[in-house]
Amino acid sequence: MPKPALLSTADANFEAAFARLRFWDMSEDSAIETSVRAVLQAVRKEGDPALLRFTQEFDAVAASTMLDLTIERDQLAVAFAGLGAGQRQALEVAAARIRTYHEHQLQASWEFTDDLGNRLGQRVTPLARVGLYVPGGQAAYPSTVLMTGVPAQVAGVKEIFMTVPTPNGVRNALVLAAAHLAGVTRVFCVGGAQAIAALAFGTATIPKVDKIVGPGGAYVAAAKRLVFGHVGIDMIAGPSEIVIIADGSTPADWVAMDLFSQAEHDAAAQAILLTPDAAFRQAVRDALTRLLPSQPRRDVISASLQSRGGLVLTRHMDEAFELANRIAPEHLELAVADPVAALGRIDHAGAIFLGARSGEVFGDYIAGPSHVLPTFGTARFSSPLGVYDFQKRSSVIDISIRGGLVLGPMAATLAYGEGLQAHAGAAEMRVSAEHNSPE
Amino acid sequence: MPKPALLSTADANFEAAFARLRFWDMSEDSAIETSVRAVLQAVRKEGDPALLRFTQEFDAVAASTMLDLTIERDQLAVAFAGLGAGQRQALEVAAARIRTYHEHQLQASWEFTDDLGNRLGQRVTPLARVGLYVPGGQAAYPSTVLMTGVPAQVAGVKEIFMTVPTPNGVRNALVLAAAHLAGVTRVFCVGGAQAIAALAFGTATIPKVDKIVGPGGAYVAAAKRLVFGHVGIDMIAGPSEIVIIADGSTPADWVAMDLFSQAEHDAAAQAILLTPDAAFRQAVRDALTRLLPSQPRRDVISASLQSRGGLVLTRHMDEAFELANRIAPEHLELAVADPVAALGRIDHAGAIFLGARSGEVFGDYIAGPSHVLPTFGTARFSSPLGVYDFQKRSSVIDISIRGGLVLGPMAATLAYGEGLQAHAGAAEMRVSAEHNSPE
Repeated sequence: MPKPALLSTADANFEAAFARLRFWDMSEDSAIETSVRAVLQAVRKEGDPALLRFTQEFDAVAASTMLDLTIERDQLAVAFAGLGAGQRQALEVAAARIRTYHEHQLQASWEFTDDLGNRLGQRVTPLARVGLYVPGGQAAYPSTVLMTGVPAQVAGVKEIFMTVPTPNGVRNALVLAAAHLAGVTRVFCVGGAQAIAALAFGTATIPKVDKIVGPGGAYVAAAKRLVFGHVGIDMIAGPSEIVIIADGSTPADWVAMDLFSQAEHDAAAQAILLTPDAAFRQAVRDALTRLLPSQPRRDVISASLQSRGGLVLTRHMDEAFELANRIAPEHLELAVADPVAALGRIDHAGAIFLGARSGEVFGDYIAGPSHVLPTFGTARFSSPLGVYDFQKRSSVIDISIRGGLVLGPMAATLAYGEGLQAHAGAAEMRVSAEHNSPE
Repeated sequence: MPKPALLSTADANFEAAFARLRFWDMSEDSAIETSVRAVLQAVRKEGDPALLRFTQEFDAVAASTMLDLTIERDQLAVAFAGLGAGQRQALEVAAARIRTYHEHQLQASWEFTDDLGNRLGQRVTPLARVGLYVPGGQAAYPSTVLMTGVPAQVAGVKEIFMTVPTPNGVRNALVLAAAHLAGVTRVFCVGGAQAIAALAFGTATIPKVDKIVGPGGAYVAAAKRLVFGHVGIDMIAGPSEIVIIADGSTPADWVAMDLFSQAEHDAAAQAILLTPDAAFRQAVRDALTRLLPSQPRRDVISASLQSRGGLVLTRHMDEAFELANRIAPEHLELAVADPVAALGRIDHAGAIFLGARSGEVFGDYIAGPSHVLPTFGTARFSSPLGVYDFQKRSSVIDISIRGGLVLGPMAATLAYGEGLQAHAGAAEMRVSAEHNSPE
């Protein structure tokens, strides 16, 4: 029987119980960091030989050269063509929908001319070269290939490299097919910290990229944190989480299954229900018990619900919204009769699912938005992965003669105020008539 | 006499000399990191008492409570009113211009309805609470207050807190006046890693913020890197740099003074000229020699030019553009006769200044774009600080009945392909007629 924590905001000890439910040790594991540092240094120094050695050792892949670990575009097309019709269609529809959604995020360069004739603006251009990290240990994630690769493609990134571990040399056809649809340039069958090192520093085979995106385990997260600055990264992913706010008007079975679908990821995943309706909470609890035995991943689900799951009874809906905002969850379902009104009450969440029909699963695979989302409260300050992660901006400044004459003295005043006299001098030179008249 | 390195791309050893010129040790100093970790931990654990103790010790401020280190809004207004007319006008014009420029960056929420009746979109909202870190050791930087605070204000951030060290208790009126114009909520006279810790974790006096922005020295950079994840950060700043591409058509004195204005920041700042015109390079060299003695900051300028400055002769303009793209500089001046054509040749730069009149100094103070820019090649993947740094996005997903019927089976196919059966179950439930008809 699944055993999520049963909390009630009316209880005297609620705050302590809620803090226990939410607790997650974010501190880095120093043993992991030490070993990751060694891997990064070896790959940076030796390049391909180190990469090959780590891949043989950690992934048990019998490769003798980097060529054995490299998959070219035409092989990706072959993988796609080899799929059954159902999978091919599902991947194609998902890719097309992700593309359509992300086209709304494309930003264009802009400029304006002010009343002094200065031209000011911002030039928006795609990153030149990015690396997708795709996990591939116990499970394979073609959806992650689409959710990271398609936004990069929409942004106009010319070179999209992908790394994916292939333990025991087993390559996943769905992953390669998804790479085909996402326009991936080339795939390298490497994983872990060694893949991050190769993408960050470059080797003879793997090009150094400008930014690395995509989720990964503790080693990948530690490696991304350490290479940040040498190369851009998207975010450091924490455990996945869902919060469901329910007013009792939606099917309890759907809510229970959505809690399962979060919990089935791993024991650290967090699934929380917030409802002011005690009878509905009991109905969800009953549904969890009834539906669990038929779940192939019931062991993971049970472990997750027991250690990090929670069914929280609130005094009223207001309190449910308030708690959701405190959590700032990665996924938030508004399983209520009037989800549009409820949306107005939400301050922070990675993705918001409106109404009972909008199960998280649609967002995970096929609705359109990326499923790479800010976790563990970082939705307070960060955003879903998007086209904007694959575009960069340059300020453009074109000062007119009149602009120099009018603004030069003021820029000099501010520069003198900071004790930066060469700055002031550079401004004052543009005010002198000498150079301004003849040109 | 200033002694920048004289390089020529035609030389056999150019690549090695260029690599030496560009070299900068990015590795973290482990002594700094250790001491920063201790400061972070003390402030996180003890709060205000630790903050007060570090401020007394490091900044020699005679404060007995945190109240002594807190400056309220009305005092900021007093500081502004107390300035001379020239400084007041310069600050006001700068703030207004920065505001106008950044209003072009404001992003709005959007949504669309697809052909299945699904509503999809993205909700764009301001961060709730941010912290501006303003350096204030040897010099004070009112411009940085405007360049970080005004974009936050334009984004709609409600609570903007600012920290600035006040060594020996000396408060800078210009800095406080700028905080007034940027709509800062409250200023705390603390600095260094302890200020970052307070903003990241919160104390009884200093509220925990969602994101910390602004430049700082090695201790601040290390602290920002360590708190990243608990809180958002803008970027880790490296040494400031300018690249000037010149075709010989612009005044050599202006180019020399712009090199000075970069070099006067500190000995680590980098100023590089790229030109195919040997006579022009000599003219700039002569101007450097002639203009240096009158520079109050000539010692810093000399040290910077000698250790990190370079005058590079290229074989042609193409090569100058190519080298600039390899550098991906923080500031790039196109001191050429046709800067608009040259702009088309640039792939990566933080801010681009068109033509001889557009000296970097205008961007530093008054043109409008933020002077907080990506340094040390990070313009390949990151952008100037902007309104987008103070907005966050939530995906919004509203699946229609028809959407569930059509997309549910495909989502289930993809979920089964990843071995996530509860996900598949959640999708399939939305396809069953049972719940779809009555509602």
